[in-house]
Amino acid sequence: MAKQTPFSRDFLAYEMTITTRWFDNDIYGHMNNSIHYQLFDTVVNGFLLDQKLLDMVDCPTVFLVVETGCQYFEELSFPDVITAGLRVSKIGTSSIVYDVALFKNENQTAAAQGKFVHVNVDRTTRRPEPITGDARLLLEKFHG
Amino acid sequence: MAKQTPFSRDFLAYEMTITTRWFDNDIYGHMNNSIHYQLFDTVVNGFLLDQKLLDMVDCPTVFLVVETGCQYFEELSFPDVITAGLRVSKIGTSSIVYDVALFKNENQTAAAQGKFVHVNVDRTTRRPEPITGDARLLLEKFHG
Amino acid sequence: MAKQTPFSRDFLAYEMTITTRWFDNDIYGHMNNSIHYQLFDTVVNGFLLDQKLLDMVDCPTVFLVVETGCQYFEELSFPDVITAGLRVSKIGTSSIVYDVALFKNENQTAAAQGKFVHVNVDRTTRRPEPITGDARLLLEKFHG
Amino acid sequence: MAKQTPFSRDFLAYEMTITTRWFDNDIYGHMNNSIHYQLFDTVVNGFLLDQKLLDMVDCPTVFLVVETGCQYFEELSFPDVITAGLRVSKIGTSSIVYDVALFKNENQTAAAQGKFVHVNVDRTTRRPEPITGDARLLLEKFHG
Repeated sequence: MAKQTPFSRDFLAYEMTITTRWFDNDIYGHMNNSIHYQLFDTVVNGFLLDQKLLDMVDCPTVFLVVETGCQYFEELSFPDVITAGLRVSKIGTSSIVYDVALFKNENQTAAAQGKFVHVNVDRTTRRPEPITGDARLLLEKFHG
Repeated sequence: MAKQTPFSRDFLAYEMTITTRWFDNDIYGHMNNSIHYQLFDTVVNGFLLDQKLLDMVDCPTVFLVVETGCQYFEELSFPDVITAGLRVSKIGTSSIVYDVALFKNENQTAAAQGKFVHVNVDRTTRRPEPITGDARLLLEKFHG
Repeated sequence: MAKQTPFSRDFLAYEMTITTRWFDNDIYGHMNNSIHYQLFDTVVNGFLLDQKLLDMVDCPTVFLVVETGCQYFEELSFPDVITAGLRVSKIGTSSIVYDVALFKNENQTAAAQGKFVHVNVDRTTRRPEPITGDARLLLEKFHG
Repeated sequence: MAKQTPFSRDFLAYEMTITTRWFDNDIYGHMNNSIHYQLFDTVVNGFLLDQKLLDMVDCPTVFLVVETGCQYFEELSFPDVITAGLRVSKIGTSSIVYDVALFKNENQTAAAQGKFVHVNVDRTTRRPEPITGDARLLLEKFHG
């Protein structure tokens, strides 16, 4: 990715609060770069659960992650409180591309942001399945 | 440990809210047993930071963990919101023993609880150092 | 638990090698206390898979963790190579109690050790199910 | 990133073996997407330690992560054994860009691969510092 400009908080269409943990901090005393992806995963799946687009147990399809990326602008660390946000940036036949971002405490520009790509697949065969009907309409509402 | 009775929330002297994450859930769809210890670590160190008993960078002593334990009474899982609590159960010459517990959403009895033992050591030599003066007096206020 | 004597490596009935990771180290430059439980989980489930006592997908029963504990004798840190070992210390009607331990590189006495208690439950109802027949006989071979 | 072709194992200039853990698997029974970044972090820092380009305690400069990304081609899961590899793809004034990849068991094409960007900074001020002299020459040997 080319170097991006940090998103502002109002750029995003959905957000949630995530508390940090002591062991998010690595030897450098800041949130390890892999934790950002745990938070992206949390906001994306939290969004899907909220919108009834994901059922962890019974749904015949599940969303698998095929690509992720992150740019880190500012250090986060325990005990910061994070706002994790997203907007849908593209809806393909079977895929959803999200812009995702993390904000430190009250800050209005992102400390880190990235891309998160889900593909809708059959739970058993793991073959792509089209995103159709109500799910598609709902996702479009969160499309920037 | 003998099988314990779950603590009630008012048994504890300090608490904080911790949000769960998508990847706290393991293949069984519930919080993996190791995550409970990340939450215990968070409430204990959060308490120490709040009380100005821990300085992550400059203090000549640090607290190292020498023993932990947990009994699991009830499954926790994303997207539950957890209340993590503690009370000081014993203050030794250099050690602090904490009772720690996790509560699921609004529940008043613990979903999991355990023991967490810190020893105060010199940052460089890692030899035990006595807990004295104001720190000791402060810890006694959180002693059940 | 009373303070234990570190196990020697030959005390254990099953072992596996686990490599450490950069982010096992926390701000103190050593393996965070919660990681020990990830390694205990790995050796116990690795043992069950090896012995064909666990099927991650199809088995009508699964093992849930009801109690864990750890005493930390010596610091571990990336890039140490860990030997994780276990022996079965008790087989109840539905439960298995394991002694578990972690050894640093070539060391013959444990850097950390603990207890790990599994209960065999029905995958759907989560009610205890007796451990019987061949499974019981096999587990007894690993009983110290 | 445009969709990439999986790297072959001989494309990489440095590799190490990493064992998987029970709790690398998430609710879908495969390695959670955030774990890939723990493994990238491990191979990059393991490489730097091996080459004496990183001293976890004493060095006046440290490497901070400013960008990461991953494409996921094939599911990995416990108990797979992973080969994690890298090559240096670009050396800037203060930055190092790595191609990184993960291989499943004996497979010769990557299950996942990505990009990992380090910036050399002053440990205290966190301002970029040039990569010079022997460090630069050494890194060039791992440049594809």
